Amino acid sequence: MVFGKRHILSMRDFSREEIDLILDRALELEPYAKGKRSDRLKGKILANLFFEPSTRTRISFETAMKRLGGEVLNLDSTESSSIAKGETLADTIRVISAYADIIVLRHPKEGSARLASEFSSVPLINGGDGAGHHPTQTLLDLYTIKRESRLDGISIALVGDLKYGRTVHSLSIALSFYGASIKLVSPPGLGMSETMKSDLMDLGAEISEHDSIQDVIGDIDVLYVTRIQKERFPTLSEYNKVAGSYRIDKKLLESAKDDLIIMHPLPRVGEIDPEVDGTKHACYFKQAFYGVPVRMALLTLLLEGDGDE
Amino acid sequence: MVFGKRHILSMRDFSREEIDLILDRALELEPYAKGKRSDRLKGKILANLFFEPSTRTRISFETAMKRLGGEVLNLDSTESSSIAKGETLADTIRVISAYADIIVLRHPKEGSARLASEFSSVPLINGGDGAGHHPTQTLLDLYTIKRESRLDGISIALVGDLKYGRTVHSLSIALSFYGASIKLVSPPGLGMSETMKSDLMDLGAEISEHDSIQDVIGDIDVLYVTRIQKERFPTLSEYNKVAGSYRIDKKLLESAKDDLIIMHPLPRVGEIDPEVDGTKHACYFKQAFYGVPVRMALLTLLLEGDGDE
Amino acid sequence: MVFGKRHILSMRDFSREEIDLILDRALELEPYAKGKRSDRLKGKILANLFFEPSTRTRISFETAMKRLGGEVLNLDSTESSSIAKGETLADTIRVISAYADIIVLRHPKEGSARLASEFSSVPLINGGDGAGHHPTQTLLDLYTIKRESRLDGISIALVGDLKYGRTVHSLSIALSFYGASIKLVSPPGLGMSETMKSDLMDLGAEISEHDSIQDVIGDIDVLYVTRIQKERFPTLSEYNKVAGSYRIDKKLLESAKDDLIIMHPLPRVGEIDPEVDGTKHACYFKQAFYGVPVRMALLTLLLEGDGDE
Repeated sequence: MVFGKRHILSMRDFSREEIDLILDRALELEPYAKGKRSDRLKGKILANLFFEPSTRTRISFETAMKRLGGEVLNLDSTESSSIAKGETLADTIRVISAYADIIVLRHPKEGSARLASEFSSVPLINGGDGAGHHPTQTLLDLYTIKRESRLDGISIALVGDLKYGRTVHSLSIALSFYGASIKLVSPPGLGMSETMKSDLMDLGAEISEHDSIQDVIGDIDVLYVTRIQKERFPTLSEYNKVAGSYRIDKKLLESAKDDLIIMHPLPRVGEIDPEVDGTKHACYFKQAFYGVPVRMALLTLLLEGDGDE
Repeated sequence: MVFGKRHILSMRDFSREEIDLILDRALELEPYAKGKRSDRLKGKILANLFFEPSTRTRISFETAMKRLGGEVLNLDSTESSSIAKGETLADTIRVISAYADIIVLRHPKEGSARLASEFSSVPLINGGDGAGHHPTQTLLDLYTIKRESRLDGISIALVGDLKYGRTVHSLSIALSFYGASIKLVSPPGLGMSETMKSDLMDLGAEISEHDSIQDVIGDIDVLYVTRIQKERFPTLSEYNKVAGSYRIDKKLLESAKDDLIIMHPLPRVGEIDPEVDGTKHACYFKQAFYGVPVRMALLTLLLEGDGDE
Repeated sequence: MVFGKRHILSMRDFSREEIDLILDRALELEPYAKGKRSDRLKGKILANLFFEPSTRTRISFETAMKRLGGEVLNLDSTESSSIAKGETLADTIRVISAYADIIVLRHPKEGSARLASEFSSVPLINGGDGAGHHPTQTLLDLYTIKRESRLDGISIALVGDLKYGRTVHSLSIALSFYGASIKLVSPPGLGMSETMKSDLMDLGAEISEHDSIQDVIGDIDVLYVTRIQKERFPTLSEYNKVAGSYRIDKKLLESAKDDLIIMHPLPRVGEIDPEVDGTKHACYFKQAFYGVPVRMALLTLLLEGDGDE
């Protein structure tokens, strides 16, 4: 299959076949993510163009590129503001794409990545555009599930803010391709929209809604925990009440399946008790690491795609 | 010709023969700027020491160095302030020159580069010192003219703020060496100084002054557009009136020569209508790219100069 | 001797034998610090994780790594704050140690390095933790003394704030191993604590206290000057009086031994008159440079330590 040079803006840009290709490539590249030497991308330059800070995304791409022998230009949010002082995003992208072989763009405004891609002469990867998309986060989530559990027909609980959470939207769409049973666990008012649920069912997912993690903990293969933001609640005491009842601890895990894995996009701020870190269920630090082989896979597919390097 | 290790502080440091050498070298290195692999500067370290942000200059040097296999230390304006907290520029330079093989210095104060060079044990390139010099900008402008038009005996219009604009001063001096006919087009009060004009004529240039671009558009080979800064005008409405009458659009270009090229040091903030971007005349994005081969040329000449590496 | 993978938190982590090993290794690596090409650490990644700025420490590690062919991830103080927004230092370290092969941590709080090391799966080097330790500064000080004078049985004057100065504490402990005669010269109220002095004597050092540099200048091999901070004095005039009487100038050096060396951790802010820079005694810029071979030594010992790379 020819992957080809192209922009990566959303998970909707991929067929299931292409997702599998990326995940298989990631598995091949994992030894290099762990430190095996490679010069596969030697001579290539990636530009990290970040209009808002996202250190984890930035250094994960930087590590992926450097572990494969490539080079990185970092343009952080302060500089990006400066380069764009009175300059259109279009002009900034045209200049950067004259220097680099591939661009990762992080921008606070939804739709920025698509706009930017129209002016880039090199592949542009959306590294998160506000309430929009963040496809490499979803790819690394899928890879983590594949590596630590299995992708086909899993039962997964998505926990937290399912109304505004960008991460869980993309992930649940992707999981629908693999026939997942998705259990939605969210506080009142932060549930997934009806449109979204109906989309997922159309794609082949089985959807159910639950009030508490206790209701589902015994039935699931994957527990995907996300942040619940203080700002969504009218008062701090309401937030504290909800946050407390969604906190994962060892007691809760007593009724879990033996091979349950727990995921979290990080940073966590109290959603998972540190006592869980030492259990066999904890996968969130591995998940952060898996960002490297997955991004390596995408970089090699995009930079080596057409064979005329 | 031996170029040798030395500091690059201003265009006045170069003979015409040396400028030609740099531009010829840039042409040789252009394939590497476009991505051809090279390890020519492997093991060499460039320090970008920036006391004010100038992302374009920074990443253009960084790209040039990395595309030739070299390494880069970035010291941005925040850190530069920190390193220099209560420390003299002399001490900062002495320390950095113990770590790096070459330094690019950007500093808001005119004369800083010359001062700094006296304490540097490695070649120091002035990457812009306030109202002073910015020789690599002029070199890339010359290279753009050579690549996209021709250097000898061209007719060029310099448009915008010719009183305070650092870029146009250095460029017009350099063009005088090549027998240019220079047409000065500036708003009232922002014209080039009498001393400067007289200097240019002494160097062999033909100088004329014009009120509007329309007057010269049919006669020129190069249209060099620069920013007109709001701060130079007593009121916003006066600025808007002037800025509007100096805006380049498709209509204006109807009477242009077929092979006219339009240049701009970027970022632009309205001086050139985006509708011009798609025309054959637009060269400003190529110009930004040409900063890479030109800086590669200078870096190789300075770092390989004496053959005792 | 097997050095092995381990954390470097304080000088107390080293035996005298290990210090000698590091200094010997630094001597071997000095040609590479000066620009000789090496790929010894190719494929290795160092993460500079700085929660407060310390440009000199950062770029010295970065230079050491890059001159040996390794790669560097920089996470500056702004980003470090961001990555740690609501996140524990433990989580940050767990994530970074999944990306990098070695971590340098700079943190304003004493004890941070030890805490962080408990969560790092790769060697962590303390790059300064507030009033705590900064072992690589001490190692480079020792290396400077060894290279420019000699380590065994020297007579050294420590000048400045000996009460709060972190640098002089670690250095004097290390020098005690080598039977140094240590002359303490500090303003009233900024003298070394009784506990510290007694510790040094227990370790084998000979200690004496003096009011002025003049008293000792003729007897010493090394003059180690440190900053006296304005904040330690009740009024500016008291500070000025003291600072003036501790200023090193050419006149003072008239009675110095011929081979006296003057050291300073830099940046200096008036403690040493620039007229001293040109004398044979001035070693402080060499000292800054020696940070590179010393850090190279430590990096190679830690990254190549167990031979299973």
